[in-house]
Amino acid sequence: MDPLDAAMKKCGADAFVHYATGEDADMRYLTRFVMHDSFVFFKRRRQPGTIIVPQMEAERASRESTAAVMTRTQAGLPDITKKEKDPWKATAQMIAGQAGKTLLVSPELPAALLRALEEHGRVIVDAGTVGQVRAKKSPEEIRLMQEVQKKTEHAMALGISLISHATVRKGILYHNGAPLTSELVRVAMHKQLMDEGCRAVETIISCAGDTAFPHIIGSGPLKPHAPIVIDMFPRDEATGYYADMTRTVSKGKPGSQISEMYEAVREAQKIGISHIKAGVTGAEAHNAVVDYFKSRGYESDTRGFIHNLGHGVGLQVHEIPTVGPAGAVLEAGHVVTVEPGLYYSGVGGVRLEDMGAVRAGKFADFTQYEETLIV
Amino acid sequence: MDPLDAAMKKCGADAFVHYATGEDADMRYLTRFVMHDSFVFFKRRRQPGTIIVPQMEAERASRESTAAVMTRTQAGLPDITKKEKDPWKATAQMIAGQAGKTLLVSPELPAALLRALEEHGRVIVDAGTVGQVRAKKSPEEIRLMQEVQKKTEHAMALGISLISHATVRKGILYHNGAPLTSELVRVAMHKQLMDEGCRAVETIISCAGDTAFPHIIGSGPLKPHAPIVIDMFPRDEATGYYADMTRTVSKGKPGSQISEMYEAVREAQKIGISHIKAGVTGAEAHNAVVDYFKSRGYESDTRGFIHNLGHGVGLQVHEIPTVGPAGAVLEAGHVVTVEPGLYYSGVGGVRLEDMGAVRAGKFADFTQYEETLIV
Repeated sequence: MDPLDAAMKKCGADAFVHYATGEDADMRYLTRFVMHDSFVFFKRRRQPGTIIVPQMEAERASRESTAAVMTRTQAGLPDITKKEKDPWKATAQMIAGQAGKTLLVSPELPAALLRALEEHGRVIVDAGTVGQVRAKKSPEEIRLMQEVQKKTEHAMALGISLISHATVRKGILYHNGAPLTSELVRVAMHKQLMDEGCRAVETIISCAGDTAFPHIIGSGPLKPHAPIVIDMFPRDEATGYYADMTRTVSKGKPGSQISEMYEAVREAQKIGISHIKAGVTGAEAHNAVVDYFKSRGYESDTRGFIHNLGHGVGLQVHEIPTVGPAGAVLEAGHVVTVEPGLYYSGVGGVRLEDMGAVRAGKFADFTQYEETLIV
Repeated sequence: MDPLDAAMKKCGADAFVHYATGEDADMRYLTRFVMHDSFVFFKRRRQPGTIIVPQMEAERASRESTAAVMTRTQAGLPDITKKEKDPWKATAQMIAGQAGKTLLVSPELPAALLRALEEHGRVIVDAGTVGQVRAKKSPEEIRLMQEVQKKTEHAMALGISLISHATVRKGILYHNGAPLTSELVRVAMHKQLMDEGCRAVETIISCAGDTAFPHIIGSGPLKPHAPIVIDMFPRDEATGYYADMTRTVSKGKPGSQISEMYEAVREAQKIGISHIKAGVTGAEAHNAVVDYFKSRGYESDTRGFIHNLGHGVGLQVHEIPTVGPAGAVLEAGHVVTVEPGLYYSGVGGVRLEDMGAVRAGKFADFTQYEETLIV
C-alpha cells in the first residue's frame, strides 16, 4: 500500500495535507514542482495527489508537476475570501472543502494553519511519513545523486588545483600575481558548478585557525603549511538533489599535530565506512569512530570529534537518517555521508567526507576523489 | 515598546518562540545567523533573544548571531533525550524549560512542535508580528536593497547586451557562432552576479510563446522578432536581501500585438507607480491598473493581467505587503515591486517590473534601468 494511504488508514484520515513552497523537500518529492510562494498539496485516500496553485502558475504546474493541478479559483478561494479575511483561516476553509473533515497533516505544517484546520474537524499530525519514504532512494534517485557527486568532485579538483599551483610569498598563497583567497577559490568552484547545472552556496574554504570551527566558511588569503578545509554541498538545479563532500589539504607540509590528526581522521573514515550497512544503527557506526579516536587519544566532547559521523542527503543537504549517537537502524537505499573530523582551537581542524548508499552488506561510496593532505 | 514584547504582553505570554533554519526570513531577521539545520529562537519579555544551537555551531554563532547563544547541552537537551525519544517532544521540553509555560509562537512553527509544546502549557499562535516588523525597512536595509538592485541592473545590462549584439540566422539568435540560448544568457548573468557577491536562481529568460506563462523560466535558442522576458530576483549572499526586476525586450521588431501590449504595460506601470504611497491600499493601486488595462481592451482574469501588481521584497523575494486585490494599507518603509504584465496564449507576454520604497507622498523607485522593447 502507498505509505501515505497506510498512514491515513491507521488514523482514519480522509486525506493527507501539506503546505509549503516547492523548495521544501517533502513538497518537491510529492510534486516535483517548484514555486516561490506557498501552496497546498492534498491527497485523499487511494487517490493521486493534487496541488492548489494560483491561476498564473496553472499552465506551468500542469506541465511540470507530478500531482494533479487545481487553481485556487477552482478550489473556491475567491468566494471564501469575500467573507474570511484571515488568510490562514481562508486557506483552511478551502482545504477542508476539498480534502475532507479528518486530516493527516505533515509535521512541518505551519502552526497557524493547523489551528485554523482544527476549526473544521479532527487533525492528526503525521510522524514524518514523507521524510521516511524520501530517505530510501530509488535506483533512479541514486543515479541522479551520483551525477551530482561527480560534478562536485570536478569542482573539488579545480579548487585543490588552484591551491596546489599557487605560489607562496610572505606567508600567503598567490595566483596570477594576486593573493589566493577563500573567496576566489569559492567563486571559481561555484562558476564551474554552474556550467554543470549545479548551484552551490556557502562552500567552506577555511584555513589555519578557522578550520577548528567546522562551519566557519572562511575568508581572506589562504596560507601555506596549514590545513585548508573544503566542504561543499552543491545541488543539481534541475532535479534538486544534493551531493556533499569535504577534503582537507595543505599547501606544503603542515605542523605535525595536523598531520597526525589527518591520519587519524582518514583511518576513522575507513572504520566508519566499514560499519555502515543495512541493519546496523547510525549510533553503532558513530560510536565505533568515537572509540577509535579515543584509542588514539582524541576526545569526542567539546573538542576533538564534536559532531555526528554523518547524515542523510537527498532533496535536503541534511535529512534522515542520523549517523550519530541518536542514529536508528540504517536501511538499504539510504544515502548518507561519512565525515569524521577533529577540531582543536589553536591547532586547527581536519575533516574528510564521502557520500554513498547503504547496501545490504556494505557502504557503496559515491566519492572517488583521493585523500591527500599535502598538495 | 518592542513589537514582540507588545504582542506577548497582549496575550500574557512569558516568551516568544520561533523554530526554523537561518534561511527562514523571520529567523534571519531575528538572529542574522544562518544555519542549515533547524534551531530554536526564544525571547522572554523585556529580554534579548537567545538561540539554542549545537555545540559545533556555538563559536560561529557567537561571532555571527545578534541573539545570545546557548548550546543544546546548556539547555539540557542531552538529559532530556535520555528519556524522551521523540525529537519534537524533546525539543518542546527543552524550550519549555528555558522559555516558560505560556508561549507565543510564530505562525510558521511546525505543527508537530506546536502539539508537543501544548503538553507543557498554553500556546498562542502569533498573527505574524515579525513579518510585519520586517516589512518596514530601516534606512540601512533600504541602502542594502538599493545595492542589490544596482548589481541586478548590471546583470540585466549584460543579458540584454548579449541579445542586442546577437546575430540572426534561420530564425534564431547566435553569439560567437553558437545559438544564443536562454541557458547561456542565464549562466552569464548568474556568473556576473556571483562576482558581485549575489546569488540568483531560476532567472526567467523566456521567449516567444513561453512568455505567455509568467513563470516558465525558458530554455533553448532565443528568437528574433519575439518578446524575451527577463525576470531576475538575486539575493545578496552576505546580507540575505533580495532585489527583483523584469524587462521585456525583442531582438528586432516584434508583432504589432506585442508592441501594443508593451506600450500598455509601460503606461500601466507609470499609473501603478503614481498610486503607490503611504496610506493608499495595495488594492487601490492594483485596481487602478486593472481599470487602465480595461480602458485599453485588456482583461484581468484568466488572461490579460493575470497576477498581482506587486509584492513586498526583503529577506524573502515575496513577502508582505500585498499589492493586489487583497492588499491592505501601504506604509512608509515598505519595499514593493510594481510589475504589470499582459499574457495571451498564442501571442505572448510582456512584463515590466521595478522595485522601490513606499514613501509619504510617493514611490521611491530603486530601478533606473531603461525600458526599451526593441534592442
